[in-house]
Amino acid sequence: MGGYPRAVRIDQISTPALVIDQAAFEHNVATMSAVRPGASLRPHVKAFKSTDLARRLADAGHTNFCCATVREMEGMAAAGLGHDLLLANEVVDPRRLRRLGTLAEAGAARVTVAVDSVATIEAAARSGITDVLIDVFVGLPRCGCDPDDAEQLAEVARASGLHVRGVMGYEGHLVHEKDRGTRTERVAAAMADLARAHAVVGGDIVSGGGTGTYDCNDVVNEVQAGSYTLMDGQYGELDLPFRPALHVLTTVISVNPSGWVVLDGGLKALAMDQGNPTTTDATVLFCSDEHTVIAPDDGVVFAVGDRVMLAPAHIDPTIAKHPRMFVAAGDQIVDEWAVDLRDWGD
Amino acid sequence: MGGYPRAVRIDQISTPALVIDQAAFEHNVATMSAVRPGASLRPHVKAFKSTDLARRLADAGHTNFCCATVREMEGMAAAGLGHDLLLANEVVDPRRLRRLGTLAEAGAARVTVAVDSVATIEAAARSGITDVLIDVFVGLPRCGCDPDDAEQLAEVARASGLHVRGVMGYEGHLVHEKDRGTRTERVAAAMADLARAHAVVGGDIVSGGGTGTYDCNDVVNEVQAGSYTLMDGQYGELDLPFRPALHVLTTVISVNPSGWVVLDGGLKALAMDQGNPTTTDATVLFCSDEHTVIAPDDGVVFAVGDRVMLAPAHIDPTIAKHPRMFVAAGDQIVDEWAVDLRDWGD
Repeated sequence: MGGYPRAVRIDQISTPALVIDQAAFEHNVATMSAVRPGASLRPHVKAFKSTDLARRLADAGHTNFCCATVREMEGMAAAGLGHDLLLANEVVDPRRLRRLGTLAEAGAARVTVAVDSVATIEAAARSGITDVLIDVFVGLPRCGCDPDDAEQLAEVARASGLHVRGVMGYEGHLVHEKDRGTRTERVAAAMADLARAHAVVGGDIVSGGGTGTYDCNDVVNEVQAGSYTLMDGQYGELDLPFRPALHVLTTVISVNPSGWVVLDGGLKALAMDQGNPTTTDATVLFCSDEHTVIAPDDGVVFAVGDRVMLAPAHIDPTIAKHPRMFVAAGDQIVDEWAVDLRDWGD
Repeated sequence: MGGYPRAVRIDQISTPALVIDQAAFEHNVATMSAVRPGASLRPHVKAFKSTDLARRLADAGHTNFCCATVREMEGMAAAGLGHDLLLANEVVDPRRLRRLGTLAEAGAARVTVAVDSVATIEAAARSGITDVLIDVFVGLPRCGCDPDDAEQLAEVARASGLHVRGVMGYEGHLVHEKDRGTRTERVAAAMADLARAHAVVGGDIVSGGGTGTYDCNDVVNEVQAGSYTLMDGQYGELDLPFRPALHVLTTVISVNPSGWVVLDGGLKALAMDQGNPTTTDATVLFCSDEHTVIAPDDGVVFAVGDRVMLAPAHIDPTIAKHPRMFVAAGDQIVDEWAVDLRDWGD
């Protein structure tokens, strides 16, 4: 992991701060790699937005990556991680697409973008993009063309001079299905649509899946999982072998005699779309901009200056609120990874 | 406002992006200044986290500011806006407090910090901080000492060599009370506790209040309002004279024949603690990391490439997700303000 320049204990870093449990992270990477080695996994950078973290995945054999924004694509290329980058999202911004086209032309990255309409195909073709995937709707009401339209879109793309590398379809409506049998069955049904589209579109790539379906999706030949690296609260209810590896470290700044305790991290340090964070030894009462207020469990006493770890309800957008993540081995900080891919660039 | 270097129309900026309605912002600043001129308002920087915006408030006569983080204090001082900065929040981090102490010693800012316990007083005194306010609990279960303990804490502070400038107490539990009569009555009751603490603590400053109580709090001699500048969805239900001035501009990236429309901004561009954003001509169905999916109203047609303005449910943490805000006069972008005070610094 490279030596961290200073000997720093976890209780010496300023808060609020993201802290990665190194052992849990390494367990997660090894567990996924055993099932999805090399190019059978295309890690999704949007989950962690960090080239420092992505480099650990490349070191583990996964050199093809998935991105959600042009900023992520550009940052990965600039970090030398541009071997094969898929923008698994539709973009019509001509300025940003042109920058991606330039990256590809300069050989700084292999760039593939998702398209799901004539408009997105035209935008890609005009920008010097050469490689696309046809994005297919498989049940999640978001992007993706009707499976019946995939063949025609592929023809439009090829007629525009684009190389169609294959198809993608994200079964995001199923990745949190708790029962493994139901999940497997429903994924198979959704992926039948993707297979049908692939049969008429052609190409080498069938991309899809996520942390929740990494081992129960037999149609895709590359899984777009990212959350497994640090694991999300939402996935905690599934029978997955990955371990929670990310917390928000806070400090107690006020203890009220009436019983509540105030921590120095709140709405600006934690994603709230899945609700409040949780912690041990206390119940979270509410979060405000820079505070989380907790009620200690019976018999538990907190003092000003104590450190409290919060488990965010949703990892991905929590990380995007922070500039860096500290990596901890027990009580020792052993590394610091920049969250260098957040925001959207110019 | 200073000339913006390029002639840019609102449909030419890349998305997702924060857009300020210049006329609404200027209306809000003028409306507040008429009721709370000069030092009777201490604008809260946490709301907007931008020295560019803060400078407009200083130009309007408000040169004393309120901050929630050490990072905000340092950034304001570095921008030459350090005339009188209050850290209206408890901090025990010795490294960061020491940096504030150094700022004050160097004359780069007048630095005052809130304290509500012996521990926070000791931390301030050890760090070269000279000025404090006693933070008093007035009904919001967060920071603040019991009003009955304020006198003793002031004595401890003075015995530690600190100058006690007065008291603060934030009635955050009342700022969203919809009925004006009820709000005024409950604020008066809460502020009686602050007045009682002030009577025994002494000092020139009685600080508190917010956008919702700016004109119905007769006890404080400075109001800590910040949201009024851009106005928050939550405050929309009160009878306040301020106008919504901030939206998240997005682009349509996918239109599904089944009826839904996908925008290119989601959980990472919008604070979700108060729920989904809203828009005109459509209903928001859900947000995911980089998408918002909407259902158009009957008869409304969206096309790929169209621009859609989203009204975030909570302004303050929405701004903290973005690196900049564009200022628009009608369809013309006239300025760009950096959100330079986010994160927490080193």
